[in-house]
Amino acid sequence: MTINNVDLDSVVGLANAITDDPDNAATRWNATVVWNGGFRSESRVRDFDPVASDEPTGLGGTDTAANPVEQLLGALGNCLAVGYAANASAAGIAIDSLEIELSGHLDLHTFLGLKEGHAGYSSIQATVKLTSDATEEDLELLHAKVTSTSPVGHTLARPIPVSIELAEATSASAVA
Amino acid sequence: MTINNVDLDSVVGLANAITDDPDNAATRWNATVVWNGGFRSESRVRDFDPVASDEPTGLGGTDTAANPVEQLLGALGNCLAVGYAANASAAGIAIDSLEIELSGHLDLHTFLGLKEGHAGYSSIQATVKLTSDATEEDLELLHAKVTSTSPVGHTLARPIPVSIELAEATSASAVA
Repeated sequence: MTINNVDLDSVVGLANAITDDPDNAATRWNATVVWNGGFRSESRVRDFDPVASDEPTGLGGTDTAANPVEQLLGALGNCLAVGYAANASAAGIAIDSLEIELSGHLDLHTFLGLKEGHAGYSSIQATVKLTSDATEEDLELLHAKVTSTSPVGHTLARPIPVSIELAEATSASAVA
Repeated sequence: MTINNVDLDSVVGLANAITDDPDNAATRWNATVVWNGGFRSESRVRDFDPVASDEPTGLGGTDTAANPVEQLLGALGNCLAVGYAANASAAGIAIDSLEIELSGHLDLHTFLGLKEGHAGYSSIQATVKLTSDATEEDLELLHAKVTSTSPVGHTLARPIPVSIELAEATSASAVA
């Protein structure tokens, strides 16, 4: 069955495979970022074209692409879109259109070294605009399901162990 | 002064403007995500070209782009690249090359509705490969500075209030 252009059989098949063997739920995801000078870099995922990153000129960049904190908001919105599409399809709800506006507040003091403390977003808001002929009640249930199962949403809302290691600081003095 | 192609004057100017008026540190960032059917969507930031998102076929997608949790890793890597470039430049360290490998483990049970609990990454690792003729000691200091001031790093490592609202669930029954 296909609804919302979602291949539901594939999702159900994966859920069944995980029920048969819970180890199938353990996934690992990867990305590689290459610095291109200045505040420009690019992220590479599998065989897809690299996605560019830069900072606005007011922050010292050359303003050629969305910056990392904007990319983070995009990742959240894309994750929520998958969540709505998947759960709506499972519930038999056809989505006519779906648009998500994301916004976050960030105090630059810590990033700029002017204060110690929290360098990240102080809060993030997402506003979901969804049109469908489902009832308000069904849409509220859908919304509750999506927000309680969002991988990116939970990664942002909860503390995650983030380990950052300097593995190969090859310096001339070290190799001399 | 330009080092690493970083416009340091611009960064220093911003820091000075914030010292003069702390309100200048308050920034707001935005993105809009538009659903394109199935698990495909795109994020739009300012006037830049939209960036596509999809899921692998095993997860019910059509595998045309990196998925949201991969994008999240990319955002972290790009943020760290800016942090190294900015802090190295401020310290007079020239970076020859910089590449960051990112990886995260995610258990799919919650996303697929098979269990309640944490749907996000259980942990994220970043491995930084940096070449420079700076001393190991200077590079370790640089590393410590970057990890203690990373906006995306802190957003992931710490709990952030994430509010997700269903604003316009325009349904046929509601407008009838």
